Amino acid sequence: MRMSAKERLVVIGGDAAGMSAASQARRMRGPDELEIVAFERGHFASFSACGIPYWVSGDVDGRDRLIARTPEEHRARDIDLRMRTEVTEIDVAAGRVRARDVDSGAESWTSYDKLVIATGARPVRPDLPGFDAPGVHGVQTLDDGQALLDSLTRARGRRAVVVGAGYIGVEMAEAMVKRGYEVTVVDRGEEPMSTLDPDMGRLVRRAMEGLGITMAGGAEVTKVLTGDDGRVRAVATEDAEYPADVVVLGIGVRPETALARAAGLPLGAHGGLLTDRAMRVRGHENVWAGGDCVEVLDLVSGQQRHIPLGTHANKHGQVIGTNAGGGYATFPGVVGTAVSKVCDLEIGRTGLRERDADRVGLRFETVTVESTSRAGYYPGASPMTVKMLAERRTGRLLGVQIVGREGAAKRVDIAAVALTAGLTVEQMTALDLGYAPPFSPVWDPVLVAARKAAAKVRDSAP
Amino acid sequence: MRMSAKERLVVIGGDAAGMSAASQARRMRGPDELEIVAFERGHFASFSACGIPYWVSGDVDGRDRLIARTPEEHRARDIDLRMRTEVTEIDVAAGRVRARDVDSGAESWTSYDKLVIATGARPVRPDLPGFDAPGVHGVQTLDDGQALLDSLTRARGRRAVVVGAGYIGVEMAEAMVKRGYEVTVVDRGEEPMSTLDPDMGRLVRRAMEGLGITMAGGAEVTKVLTGDDGRVRAVATEDAEYPADVVVLGIGVRPETALARAAGLPLGAHGGLLTDRAMRVRGHENVWAGGDCVEVLDLVSGQQRHIPLGTHANKHGQVIGTNAGGGYATFPGVVGTAVSKVCDLEIGRTGLRERDADRVGLRFETVTVESTSRAGYYPGASPMTVKMLAERRTGRLLGVQIVGREGAAKRVDIAAVALTAGLTVEQMTALDLGYAPPFSPVWDPVLVAARKAAAKVRDSAP
Repeated sequence: MRMSAKERLVVIGGDAAGMSAASQARRMRGPDELEIVAFERGHFASFSACGIPYWVSGDVDGRDRLIARTPEEHRARDIDLRMRTEVTEIDVAAGRVRARDVDSGAESWTSYDKLVIATGARPVRPDLPGFDAPGVHGVQTLDDGQALLDSLTRARGRRAVVVGAGYIGVEMAEAMVKRGYEVTVVDRGEEPMSTLDPDMGRLVRRAMEGLGITMAGGAEVTKVLTGDDGRVRAVATEDAEYPADVVVLGIGVRPETALARAAGLPLGAHGGLLTDRAMRVRGHENVWAGGDCVEVLDLVSGQQRHIPLGTHANKHGQVIGTNAGGGYATFPGVVGTAVSKVCDLEIGRTGLRERDADRVGLRFETVTVESTSRAGYYPGASPMTVKMLAERRTGRLLGVQIVGREGAAKRVDIAAVALTAGLTVEQMTALDLGYAPPFSPVWDPVLVAARKAAAKVRDSAP
Repeated sequence: MRMSAKERLVVIGGDAAGMSAASQARRMRGPDELEIVAFERGHFASFSACGIPYWVSGDVDGRDRLIARTPEEHRARDIDLRMRTEVTEIDVAAGRVRARDVDSGAESWTSYDKLVIATGARPVRPDLPGFDAPGVHGVQTLDDGQALLDSLTRARGRRAVVVGAGYIGVEMAEAMVKRGYEVTVVDRGEEPMSTLDPDMGRLVRRAMEGLGITMAGGAEVTKVLTGDDGRVRAVATEDAEYPADVVVLGIGVRPETALARAAGLPLGAHGGLLTDRAMRVRGHENVWAGGDCVEVLDLVSGQQRHIPLGTHANKHGQVIGTNAGGGYATFPGVVGTAVSKVCDLEIGRTGLRERDADRVGLRFETVTVESTSRAGYYPGASPMTVKMLAERRTGRLLGVQIVGREGAAKRVDIAAVALTAGLTVEQMTALDLGYAPPFSPVWDPVLVAARKAAAKVRDSAP
């Protein structure tokens, strides 16, 4: 522990959670009271990883648009942000971290009074032949995005294979379609978007197929095949080969917690750091963690989960910075809200899927309703499918999934608040939601689902 | 009271609340058990009054698109819907209503076991010179809409004056602009949309002016001036004259409760029928009322209000039909949610305005934040202004107003659910709302407002 009058806050990781924490701590306490040192091993800090697909697609004009705040801007606010500097060890007992300059290799120790671990996540990269070949790209960092864009200029043809049909995979499929590629998405699941139940995922698949995307579901990738030049030429599954001039990996991420593990900090079943409500690492008074490297409490299931998402990382950073700055704030948990789109198809989900509810022993009723985004007679009204899960007996809302066009995705926010508040579907039938013909039918699609779910809960009462 | 084995349900008013009640009662009980007679004095039943501005604008192709269900369709479901038949008296003691055939003038009594009053609202029509002149039009009914459209073919020029700058007035202003009219909106308030605080109304006025609409605020209309042919030629205020080839009245409605008043049924301060949670008229076991003729409980202020809105009318009808059919359902109240648009400007509001909070003795903090509809770097991101009111000390959310473009209006649903659940703005800062760059900044505009409001509540703690 350092003995100087001025405290030092050390932040490991210069992205959303880390720099939000640093910025908020700085707002709480000035440089006379608190020194803030942040280490980032990469070339960029505070960038929007969620924006990469839209940069690749050409919707976003250039990499720099995705940078929320440059290192210079952070430094101007008295945050000593050290780029290209990788923390290689946390010495919790001594209150210090060892950092290495990536370019020179020079190492040194920095002591801390307070520590924030925001090491993020690392992409899952299958340990299979050929996955390190030129032309195979992840899309986690801005460097990844640039490498993919550079690679496209060298690709022989215009066939892309996306491995993984989750959010990133689906968004990258859209991006490659917009780039003029013929796109195949390969996934082990039968339907895309495994964060949805398969019946809702099917709607996404149909829409993808309508856009000319080939969905190869139920297919385990076995290897990447390369050409004479060493560059990717196809992706192989057990049953088929998909020609590919470029391969994009969208198979998700794991918490990057090797440092924390080595330091003996507590990790959960998903490999993420475990924290209390104040985002303090359990059992460590002066160590906080947030962002993609932590597990969070799912308020609906009561289980710990790993949900890498920029919006959570920012909230964590805000809470950590407040607490590390001497204030008080908490992150109570998540309900599992996520929204996405494939061209004009919108997808929203929150709460539990059927399998999640089963896993935690909840009995439930499900309903699926078809409605429209606007009053049926209003121009541009488009179909919207809402699936709702409610607990038996109590009628408590458990989850909602929505697939449709305009206005479908963000409608899950209604359910996200209802889940947070613990409303029943019967209570939801009376929600005073905004109605006007350009915005909703007289019964909002979420209300239609709630009515049907409430009826089913009543009918099933034993 | 009738003595036959089969009960008879009589419904007064064949629009949203009345026919929803009739339909739901029919779903609960078949024609062998329950006879249903509904009286409607007009030419149409079950139409969407909210859709009239969009029919007038030409967005909706023809009047029939606004009819949800024809009289024939109701009759096919064993609902004896009698059109052009006006109920002229309710005899509560004897359990009967007197009805008059509008065309023949013939009158007769019909007895009931159960009665539903759904007489709707009547437009406020100023008792001033000239308001009954040809070319002056209300827009409450399909007949009104048709008369306005017919009138446009006879108008000498293309200047329209809309009297009243509430939802209907603003929507009609847009409709007339789309019809190619030069539009002036006259209102006694300085700013349009008095359902917003004036600072938010100002944003609407600026947008209206940007569309070429002239907003004449702070102007009390004194009379309608007519030409030699008797047709409207201008609208006069104390200070000015606005030339008009057509005048549209958008000055709101009052509960149509003359029948109920004459029958001695309980009315509230706004002139609407008073009901219990089951929508039963207070003190009358077998009489229900719903839709625009009742007052509703505002769950935020605890006061009774009159809020004529199709979505409430439909919910009332559903609750009444369930109860009249022998089931159990309640309408707990409203939080005052409303959404609207003027061309691509979207407007949403829910909960209390500053003056509402003042009126019921609530002390509060207000914040107004500027944010964007999508991630700032994502194409099409547009500005969004969110105003939030929170109670002092408790931090309970009291109201939200949003003005912006795409995605602004329906974002108030988040606040509508939060109000229903009684969340504090501090709790709202942790809401797990959907985030992806095409749909929201990493901090949703509502979260940005909640953070700022929570900070203000903390800072103001005595």
